[in-house]
Amino acid sequence: MDLRNYIADVKDFPQKGILFRDITPLMQNGEAFKFACDKMIEFAKEKGANLVVGPEARGFIFGCPVAYSLKTGFIPVRKPSKLPRETESISYDLEYGSNTLSIHVDSIKKGDKVIVIDDLLATGGTIDATVKLVEKLGGEVVGIAFLIELSDLKGRELLHQYPILSLITY
Amino acid sequence: MDLRNYIADVKDFPQKGILFRDITPLMQNGEAFKFACDKMIEFAKEKGANLVVGPEARGFIFGCPVAYSLKTGFIPVRKPSKLPRETESISYDLEYGSNTLSIHVDSIKKGDKVIVIDDLLATGGTIDATVKLVEKLGGEVVGIAFLIELSDLKGRELLHQYPILSLITY
Repeated sequence: MDLRNYIADVKDFPQKGILFRDITPLMQNGEAFKFACDKMIEFAKEKGANLVVGPEARGFIFGCPVAYSLKTGFIPVRKPSKLPRETESISYDLEYGSNTLSIHVDSIKKGDKVIVIDDLLATGGTIDATVKLVEKLGGEVVGIAFLIELSDLKGRELLHQYPILSLITY
Repeated sequence: MDLRNYIADVKDFPQKGILFRDITPLMQNGEAFKFACDKMIEFAKEKGANLVVGPEARGFIFGCPVAYSLKTGFIPVRKPSKLPRETESISYDLEYGSNTLSIHVDSIKKGDKVIVIDDLLATGGTIDATVKLVEKLGGEVVGIAFLIELSDLKGRELLHQYPILSLITY
């Protein structure tokens, strides 16, 4: 199955000059969605993951089915105001401004083998921050899976220490 | 399995006087997470659903595993700026102010049997708006599933025309 057939290219979204790779046609198609999740599940098993971590909101889309299928927990990484209990947080720079992400401190135990899942690898900033949160709590990142990788943006270089699966590369 | 054991009660979150029912301990526990998803999957099968719809972000947490397991599509309902193609939108009142939700117009076909999934039934405003979007596109809502229902807030009355599953009631 060529998953690329289920990605819509949307010009000038969210702003002029950006070619947005829209994953919703893939999600709308039960067969394509299952195929993509199964590839990530296979990768997670191969890496021996016992926990899935994903940043909101699109990390939940593939991360939760992977956790369900592996019978592991799913740990959300969210904006600081969204998690009600004690958190660890990290800030990172964006092109303009910065962003902060948080994780519950009791969500990962030392030695947990974590797969990190998101929809898109662009510059890698969000996932680099997510990996750092996992490691701060003592987790070991055994793999990172994406539906799409935008290779021009070199996110793979930032994350070069980790095994990376991307199902579609542009 | 008593799922209530996996919900953390957090006082004064997100503001003073609110007792927040935090679902993240349930998500962190692979067995409890799978148990909850399986209950929703059973309900969706029983109702003959061929499509899953969930509002961001927490509707994705249970909705995506249900879609994965049923081999159906998952349709996200999001804030207007998040969906890049043609959408149908609806606004509804909150206690203070209002909110708008959108759905891609090509995401549902006339006659689709839709299960709507979210984590929490409170006043029901978000899900009432979600149901209206589904129906505007010609979908039939065959059931609505929640992890938690806050019965004092009477969301069930607002949604009385639809079969409702809630796994935990307070």
